[in-house]
Amino acid sequence: MDLTDLANFPVLFPQDIIIKKRDGGTLTEDEIELFVRGVVDGTFADYQASALLMAIFWRGMTAQETAWLTDTMMRSGDVIDLHDLPGAKVDKHSTGGVGDKVSLILAPLAVACGLTVPMMSGRGLGHTGGTLDKLEAIPGFKVQLSVPEFRAILQKVGCAMIGQTPRIVPADRKLYSLRDVTGTVECIPLICASIMSKKLAEGIDSLVLDVKFGKGAFMKKKEDALALARAMVAVGKAAGKPVWAQMTAMDQPLGRAAGHTTEVIESIECLKGRGPADLMEVTYALTGHMLVLGGLAQDQAEARQRMEAAIADGSALQKFREMCLAQGGDARVVDDYKLLPAAKKLLEVKAGPEAQGFVSEVDALKCGHAIMALGGGRAAVTDKIDHAVGISDLVKVGEPVTAGMRLCTLHVNDAIKGMHAERLVREGITFSLAPPPHAPLIQELIQ
Amino acid sequence: MDLTDLANFPVLFPQDIIIKKRDGGTLTEDEIELFVRGVVDGTFADYQASALLMAIFWRGMTAQETAWLTDTMMRSGDVIDLHDLPGAKVDKHSTGGVGDKVSLILAPLAVACGLTVPMMSGRGLGHTGGTLDKLEAIPGFKVQLSVPEFRAILQKVGCAMIGQTPRIVPADRKLYSLRDVTGTVECIPLICASIMSKKLAEGIDSLVLDVKFGKGAFMKKKEDALALARAMVAVGKAAGKPVWAQMTAMDQPLGRAAGHTTEVIESIECLKGRGPADLMEVTYALTGHMLVLGGLAQDQAEARQRMEAAIADGSALQKFREMCLAQGGDARVVDDYKLLPAAKKLLEVKAGPEAQGFVSEVDALKCGHAIMALGGGRAAVTDKIDHAVGISDLVKVGEPVTAGMRLCTLHVNDAIKGMHAERLVREGITFSLAPPPHAPLIQELIQ
Repeated sequence: MDLTDLANFPVLFPQDIIIKKRDGGTLTEDEIELFVRGVVDGTFADYQASALLMAIFWRGMTAQETAWLTDTMMRSGDVIDLHDLPGAKVDKHSTGGVGDKVSLILAPLAVACGLTVPMMSGRGLGHTGGTLDKLEAIPGFKVQLSVPEFRAILQKVGCAMIGQTPRIVPADRKLYSLRDVTGTVECIPLICASIMSKKLAEGIDSLVLDVKFGKGAFMKKKEDALALARAMVAVGKAAGKPVWAQMTAMDQPLGRAAGHTTEVIESIECLKGRGPADLMEVTYALTGHMLVLGGLAQDQAEARQRMEAAIADGSALQKFREMCLAQGGDARVVDDYKLLPAAKKLLEVKAGPEAQGFVSEVDALKCGHAIMALGGGRAAVTDKIDHAVGISDLVKVGEPVTAGMRLCTLHVNDAIKGMHAERLVREGITFSLAPPPHAPLIQELIQ
Repeated sequence: MDLTDLANFPVLFPQDIIIKKRDGGTLTEDEIELFVRGVVDGTFADYQASALLMAIFWRGMTAQETAWLTDTMMRSGDVIDLHDLPGAKVDKHSTGGVGDKVSLILAPLAVACGLTVPMMSGRGLGHTGGTLDKLEAIPGFKVQLSVPEFRAILQKVGCAMIGQTPRIVPADRKLYSLRDVTGTVECIPLICASIMSKKLAEGIDSLVLDVKFGKGAFMKKKEDALALARAMVAVGKAAGKPVWAQMTAMDQPLGRAAGHTTEVIESIECLKGRGPADLMEVTYALTGHMLVLGGLAQDQAEARQRMEAAIADGSALQKFREMCLAQGGDARVVDDYKLLPAAKKLLEVKAGPEAQGFVSEVDALKCGHAIMALGGGRAAVTDKIDHAVGISDLVKVGEPVTAGMRLCTLHVNDAIKGMHAERLVREGITFSLAPPPHAPLIQELIQ
């Protein structure tokens, strides 16, 4: 036996990392790696991970810690390399809203303008819908593709919209499910790392974020949304990828449709040049940033010309058809909406006899809850959803209203659920004698 | 189907309770009960419990929440009823220190003065020793007794010193093991509820707490120790049991011995009237409070007379013998210390040639670490301990020192471990030319 046997070698236990963060310390890259790897391999127990998550919720993370967390999470699984594919690989991610079907329009539009769009999306949960669920309203459309299939479609079509494969950021799946049940969801560095680790694993060159705030958004307060936007842009910088974050208001649903079939139809209408103004405004802004980031336009004005041309000449719509076909979907839906799942009954919600003046509010959260009441949303990740139900023909804030005017059409498969949804929609739509003040939809761009 | 099926019945999920505390809210009695019962029956998952523990660490608990937590924890298992036993049932609990063998002297002394002392204790962990471990240095002494055995010995002898049975406060075992690995130990409401739930489950009428602060204590800062003392006294009040908390300094070890055999010998010496001054001062103060609380003395002065008489006439020592016998121990140790486990070698640590003046510090933490280095402590709850090793003849702060004078005797079973312990003890003992300032050992009494 040697005296050196008695030396106390420093060994790092999970509780040492928890205590450091609990006491307001800044974690090192090694400590963050020990946490993230440990969560995946079980050496950092769930009960230790949740205590650390709460300590992070309390004490926050520096920009450097957030960048390390994002990077170690990204490296917990496969990182896709698309550098052999031609063109700039640019994606868009939205923090989620009601009626937000921008991805379905933006991806084919951006490809028609010359970009490659490798899009991995999520499913809807709670009052906000998910891109994958909307695509699945198209008969045959497959979103669970392997990485080789994803690459092949990107090569051939230029865009593909799939779900995260199980090997993309396994640490996020584990951490997110823990956060969901331990009151540690609404924490900016954790949200930032969750989103950015998945996006950076896709093999993108740059990224446009649509960061929403307001009644129907995950972040109700603009200051919280701004902090998240800045954190994500900083993480992009740290990873050497340009990331721009567009702040957009989410008080009323985007467009006039919410649901699945209803949103697919509205998306196709947009690609046909007949989209509602607010939805096109957001789509053009986000796609425009992508084109500028991808080097295909000098500025938004030049991007706008290219985008309008791609809509006008049908090339964007054609890309949508090609993507449908490539992913197993029935591309005939583009010309025949009756091929999409249809609800049994259309229920027109009409303004009461007292209605006069203008629509002053269309509460996005209430509309999201109405979709859930109809059976078109998920309360838990395992819930099945009904693609046929939803809302269409929804009035917009500022529009004039008269007694008996249609406020929206509900697509209903169950009369009782329809009554419940109607009550929620009615609660969400209010009127005023004077025109409501104009609130800009598109706000700051964080670069 | 009825419309009422659609009503949202409020259901309380664990995460709702976590979020409430996370956001600084005050939990209700029902919410605390759902947590404590859920931790025991598994409906509140470990990872949810640890997130809530961290949120409590962050946000604290009101006196009312702490009282509810203590009460629900106490009711998670058996609550012993001793009201049929004669006399006042009064116990003492110390927050733990180095060389703190007060319980071994206090229990027989208090019984010799007329009290009943139902004492359930813990084992040592880290640098502080545990009463149960010290008692087990006595050959045959059994500390794991059933509640009926405990009652029978209390009836016959008047005191019994046992470990908590598995059915006493199971919620604490679960919560403590979680806190230990999730960085949520040093939290006053949680410490308070852990201690008080176990003490209140013993069937006591009143309780004296020895709340230590300083180098060798769990709480280094007096303000933290005071906060804990006040919390425990408040919880006692809420439970209708008088609880007094004596604040005592723990910078140097209590008495001149630390370890197990060495502390048993020093305790017996105290009962024979030959105890060191500091140890007797603390023992008399705490036992005195117990006698006043139990109605056997009007004040400390009267209590002191009774205690001195019980030492002088041998009745306290006789109670120690009786308790030994009743719990299976070899009571002959009282008269023959050679029957206790002895270390192979006694190593005298002597002052170096530079030593002059006075002992200015004997660092209790270093002494505790020396005991651990000798093999007489536990780093983990499952570690075995060597009862024979330890420290005796330790100098006290303020004593004059000369070159070559003995500073202590180490009881050693392994030469290398002995060298390591000697280094630690030497590091802990410092000298000064001038006498060090007097720091009072016994400080405030919180009532």
